[in-house]
Amino acid sequence: MTELETQVVVIGAGPAGLLLSRFLHDAGIRAVVLERRPMGYVLSRIRAGVLEPGSVDLLHQAGVGARLDREGQRHEGFAISYGEDLLRIDMQSLVGKSVTVYGQTEVTKDLYAAHQQNGCPLHDDVPDVAIEGLDTDRPVVTCTIDGEPTRIHCDLVAGCDGFHGVSRQSIPQAERHEYERVYPFGWLGILSETPPVDHELIYASHERGFALCSMRSNVLSRYYIQCKADDKPEQWSDEAFWDALKAHLPEHVAKTLVTGPSIEKSVAPLRSFVCEPMRYQRLFLAGDAAHIVPPTGAKGLNLAFSDVHYLSTALIEHYRDGSTRALDQYAERALARVWKAERFSWWMTSLLHRFEGDESFNERIRQAEFDYLVSSPRYQASLAENYVGLPF
Amino acid sequence: MTELETQVVVIGAGPAGLLLSRFLHDAGIRAVVLERRPMGYVLSRIRAGVLEPGSVDLLHQAGVGARLDREGQRHEGFAISYGEDLLRIDMQSLVGKSVTVYGQTEVTKDLYAAHQQNGCPLHDDVPDVAIEGLDTDRPVVTCTIDGEPTRIHCDLVAGCDGFHGVSRQSIPQAERHEYERVYPFGWLGILSETPPVDHELIYASHERGFALCSMRSNVLSRYYIQCKADDKPEQWSDEAFWDALKAHLPEHVAKTLVTGPSIEKSVAPLRSFVCEPMRYQRLFLAGDAAHIVPPTGAKGLNLAFSDVHYLSTALIEHYRDGSTRALDQYAERALARVWKAERFSWWMTSLLHRFEGDESFNERIRQAEFDYLVSSPRYQASLAENYVGLPF
Repeated sequence: MTELETQVVVIGAGPAGLLLSRFLHDAGIRAVVLERRPMGYVLSRIRAGVLEPGSVDLLHQAGVGARLDREGQRHEGFAISYGEDLLRIDMQSLVGKSVTVYGQTEVTKDLYAAHQQNGCPLHDDVPDVAIEGLDTDRPVVTCTIDGEPTRIHCDLVAGCDGFHGVSRQSIPQAERHEYERVYPFGWLGILSETPPVDHELIYASHERGFALCSMRSNVLSRYYIQCKADDKPEQWSDEAFWDALKAHLPEHVAKTLVTGPSIEKSVAPLRSFVCEPMRYQRLFLAGDAAHIVPPTGAKGLNLAFSDVHYLSTALIEHYRDGSTRALDQYAERALARVWKAERFSWWMTSLLHRFEGDESFNERIRQAEFDYLVSSPRYQASLAENYVGLPF
Repeated sequence: MTELETQVVVIGAGPAGLLLSRFLHDAGIRAVVLERRPMGYVLSRIRAGVLEPGSVDLLHQAGVGARLDREGQRHEGFAISYGEDLLRIDMQSLVGKSVTVYGQTEVTKDLYAAHQQNGCPLHDDVPDVAIEGLDTDRPVVTCTIDGEPTRIHCDLVAGCDGFHGVSRQSIPQAERHEYERVYPFGWLGILSETPPVDHELIYASHERGFALCSMRSNVLSRYYIQCKADDKPEQWSDEAFWDALKAHLPEHVAKTLVTGPSIEKSVAPLRSFVCEPMRYQRLFLAGDAAHIVPPTGAKGLNLAFSDVHYLSTALIEHYRDGSTRALDQYAERALARVWKAERFSWWMTSLLHRFEGDESFNERIRQAEFDYLVSSPRYQASLAENYVGLPF
């Protein structure tokens, strides 16, 4: 049995855990990061790729903005298509901000590279993580590091270990309230080494369903179509995918689509989920451990980063002057922003997807929503301010 | 059998039919108005009371703006409360427009008074109205006037006879598509000779349900609370109503509420409904004959008036130069505005009411919607532009 001690144990070395430990390390706070998976796996996961300006600022504050600045694509607008109609949302002129397209995979790589330089302890491939004594002054995180049972004594625990992680489960059932909606469809996504059909994202709503044209770079495209929740990627040949995608897009867009072999193909479920509270005694949840948004609207990673912003500033204040004020406000401040992003993601999802068996009234309301959006710069501005991210 | 002939038969002498026939008469187009009910009944019906500036303009164009200008109350804002929180929507500063509170009953009286002066034939208490030959050049409206079976030969028929009227039913079932949502609750409303609790409207959302504080004048209040769809007004004593109303309002508002005996009490169902198309051969529907909105958002009368605007200008163009261009565009132009108002009314209703047995996720999304509204002048502006009425 190895006994260790630190100030903060960060569970999870995804982008939230890595960014948090980076801020803590920079502020002289001792932290240990534990990751259940091998880092090789974490670093190869393919995830979202749209960063709000607030997230870009945080990455700069963390000193990992250099490659992002070089390789990230600044997008001043995006498009929504509805059948054959296409509306461009000009974020830059509507709200004076833009987003940056830069894959989450790249963000995680940059954060991990920085992490390796600063010497903050990070253990990956760590099984059996459990949290004990949250109601005491010194909680203990137990786990197995390099085959050795280990107990890490700490002041506080940061749960950044995602939806399936152990952190949220460590809050007694009676103390947590979970709000959830599971959508009756999924997204089938592919990555292909082809030029994107447009230099900006296109969110396409069609009577056949939703599609998204996205990209990672000028030569790497990311496309999605709405599929059945239980579809398997193997069921979809590349050809079937491209045919379906073309049928979801306005004709003039479909015509210019360049297709090619897929280098990744996967099905993701769509879920809205919030756990309250986000703090339980000495445990603080951040990111997917506490909440999930459907990917429509690209809020998942950005929301994890705003949690980290609130949590890191609260921890730094706590260790600087002993105050618990900001820590005590963490859950409420984070949740206020989380719920607004949940609302936006739910709204974008409801607007753009086809709901099997839905009342025809609802379908017409969705059409009216699009028509109103086309006609109203005010409504477009509201959409844009959510898309670029509400203020912290 | 009496045989009459005219250019346009207007079925229904509610505000839509009266305003339409007024415009036609002013343009020298011959019209006959038929009303199933005695005018005494029509003139005493209590209905909504919020006029968009576009509706006020139309009443001025019709030469019936004088009493409206004197007695109507100009409202530059209204409030939405959510539990104990209250948000004022300052329409005037957000979108530079305001609304006028003036009862539909008064609008109908003014239109009828003007009608009586100009001599356009209006027959009330007319049973057995039916429409024949819509697919011919000269349709015939049959009815019984003063006990005498009557056939009115005409060019065109305007159906302004409300949701239960004969006009919509005259479109063959196979030719019309009806979109509908019935909400699982109603509004219990009372009229009382008491000063309004506030000089502006308050839309109140509370975990007990929705309430609305409205008024007809400085000494006449109109209040509503959400009730079961099958509640009967007799089940509610005045005392029970006032107690429930107070419990739905923020405490500081409830405290200043002046109560008194009710002079009217009624239960209204809430329904969203649209019939497409709004034109079938030589029949043109306007107002409630074609669409119903739930009263949240006060769009019903205003939408009837915008239909009348489109229809009267199209008819005038047709009789002036023989063109059918505007008549052919009527249904599409009217429906574009109708669906946006349906969307807004549905959204206001969904935001502010309690839905029995609803998922807790949805309740939190409604709370998030309110919180976002409080935080976002852009979203408030979008709400305000809908409330004052989208452009014709």
